[in-house]
Amino acid sequence: MSRSELFQHQQLLQSFRVRCLIPDLPEAEALLPLLRQIDANAWYSNFGPLVHRYEEMLGVLTGAQTLGGEAVTLSSGTAALVLGLRALDLPVGSRVLLPAFTFAATLLAVREAGLVPVLGDVDAEDWTLTPDIARALCTRHDIQLVLPVGSLGAALPAEQWDDFVASTGVRVLIDAAAGLGVQRVGRRTPVAYSLHATKPLGIGEGGVFATADATLAERVRRSSNFGFVGGAIAQPGLNAKMSEYAAAVGLVQLDRWPKLHRLRQALWQTYREALAELPGVRLQQLAQAPAMIVARHQAGAAAMQHTFAAAGIETRRWYLPPLHRHPAFLTVEVRGPEGDTRLPVTEALESEALGLPFHTRLGRNDIEAVVATLRAVGA
Amino acid sequence: MSRSELFQHQQLLQSFRVRCLIPDLPEAEALLPLLRQIDANAWYSNFGPLVHRYEEMLGVLTGAQTLGGEAVTLSSGTAALVLGLRALDLPVGSRVLLPAFTFAATLLAVREAGLVPVLGDVDAEDWTLTPDIARALCTRHDIQLVLPVGSLGAALPAEQWDDFVASTGVRVLIDAAAGLGVQRVGRRTPVAYSLHATKPLGIGEGGVFATADATLAERVRRSSNFGFVGGAIAQPGLNAKMSEYAAAVGLVQLDRWPKLHRLRQALWQTYREALAELPGVRLQQLAQAPAMIVARHQAGAAAMQHTFAAAGIETRRWYLPPLHRHPAFLTVEVRGPEGDTRLPVTEALESEALGLPFHTRLGRNDIEAVVATLRAVGA
Repeated sequence: MSRSELFQHQQLLQSFRVRCLIPDLPEAEALLPLLRQIDANAWYSNFGPLVHRYEEMLGVLTGAQTLGGEAVTLSSGTAALVLGLRALDLPVGSRVLLPAFTFAATLLAVREAGLVPVLGDVDAEDWTLTPDIARALCTRHDIQLVLPVGSLGAALPAEQWDDFVASTGVRVLIDAAAGLGVQRVGRRTPVAYSLHATKPLGIGEGGVFATADATLAERVRRSSNFGFVGGAIAQPGLNAKMSEYAAAVGLVQLDRWPKLHRLRQALWQTYREALAELPGVRLQQLAQAPAMIVARHQAGAAAMQHTFAAAGIETRRWYLPPLHRHPAFLTVEVRGPEGDTRLPVTEALESEALGLPFHTRLGRNDIEAVVATLRAVGA
Repeated sequence: MSRSELFQHQQLLQSFRVRCLIPDLPEAEALLPLLRQIDANAWYSNFGPLVHRYEEMLGVLTGAQTLGGEAVTLSSGTAALVLGLRALDLPVGSRVLLPAFTFAATLLAVREAGLVPVLGDVDAEDWTLTPDIARALCTRHDIQLVLPVGSLGAALPAEQWDDFVASTGVRVLIDAAAGLGVQRVGRRTPVAYSLHATKPLGIGEGGVFATADATLAERVRRSSNFGFVGGAIAQPGLNAKMSEYAAAVGLVQLDRWPKLHRLRQALWQTYREALAELPGVRLQQLAQAPAMIVARHQAGAAAMQHTFAAAGIETRRWYLPPLHRHPAFLTVEVRGPEGDTRLPVTEALESEALGLPFHTRLGRNDIEAVVATLRAVGA
């Protein structure tokens, strides 16, 4: 698509009566005091004062600081994955287990880091690649790193992944693209986050790598500035730094987070209660609100999508098709739980899952409209 | 260096009486109307309205639009080089000629794109790798692409590079990292620009790829959004999109450009006239103001740097050491004009060149102080 076509396509989406996702970012006036600080500092990138402060707060939020580590800001969640994977310094060609039910960036980052992806299935309840799934596959197959994904914003059990590392010797990096605010780092388990506009703590474009290992954090930070050490390149890097403008948005967004989080929790509870009564409908089983709410319906995703569109309600096929269906990934190795290449849960999600509207501008009426529409799918 | 060390190092730089480079970016109040537009749009990335408008203006500024092409915004100048090189679709392992006198990102991007760098020398007058230098080397060596650099913000002759492509069949991509505002695209010659804070048209972090070839522009844009085409990945990409916030800064900066450009031209003229009298001093020969002013002094860079530091004047060794001196690049192939690995002009710059203060906050007094200090170096 050309720029004009892309633009028109996006504008079309705005015609829905109920949008699937409207980002909730700081208003201009709230940014102003920090923008004035940037003016006064005349410092716009390269580890400036706002990035410094934002990283300190992210270190606390992710739990990295308590464990003696740090959070490093980056230009995107994909950059956090790529530079994080490279900093782990696995031999080129090492094999990385990741779920087939995730956004394409997870796999693209693995390849960009010179590693070989191997796709596994996810758990039927929380739709994530669990330590149990990884343990079974690592016993049967040669895997050097597991890259579990906090599916749709789910928080993964960092301590269980620490135990997995300790007991198997296989490294772990969590892809919590949509999980900033709820996903914490483990002692042995670093985490990559996205700050893309679609994320609950989003700032537009950006990413974070957080780890309990201060040396690893330093390697990632250095590689985000070309690999410079004292004016020369020792270990090649790229440019993946965050600007002071992006950090300004991030700082205000962090201030807003407790309130945003409470609001999202309340909306999620409303959805859960309303959907609990509907026959044929299942939700991802989680302890707190995800970034996106996805429903499974035994009538199938196509029927749902059609009914919602007719009602003027926008839906999204988050993470779908699963990775092994993308034309670029058809030759990627797939390892199912039964020893063949079938991924039962992922494939059930492929045919039955659809993302429902979920954002802070949703009113009770909107949620009622979504639920009523979903009820009509089953009828 | 840890985050704290980096931060303290940067703060130390601010203690100089005359700074080498102070970015000149829009003030907070000037950004406010565009930030309010972002609020109203509730659209923060993925080819939004501000990016759309900014790209249209960049298409005009770079000359791409007149030639039937486009400008594509990206997350950094390095991303513009990497994605631009990949979009040209050369076989993996193709050999790329670039100057040894450039910023490390040029070479890092070549390698990141899966290509093999070959380092050449620059011209004694304008310090760039000219079509003549490239023609001589391409006759003797196997080269599939030339990546000339607009050294220190110099504008390269796009039409001459078009002729080079037509007559040799060797592809060309211009690295005009510091050249947005003065470097135009050729019919056959695309250009990558940086929008880093240190650039005259900088916005903090960002990049631009501009080309007369609309299909090439579309490939680069697609690869900046993971390679998605209609919801699936056909050709792998990464995330290198520009946020609406970054585009807001860019739009205001473009408005300011005519005034900024005139001011920079005037300061550069003042420098040229004052330095013309100084024995032993030489400047880069250009038709208009570069991004950074670098002086050669026969007394040597070390003597200059020492004298300036003692006078409280900050200087910078832009592009130095040259690429073949970086620990990570010691094994890169070097091809000198005499058939050996000596690069006479680059190596003269290595021992004699130093970046002088050059930014829009410099007063006439500051320039007089710089000139007086440079005179003392020769004494």
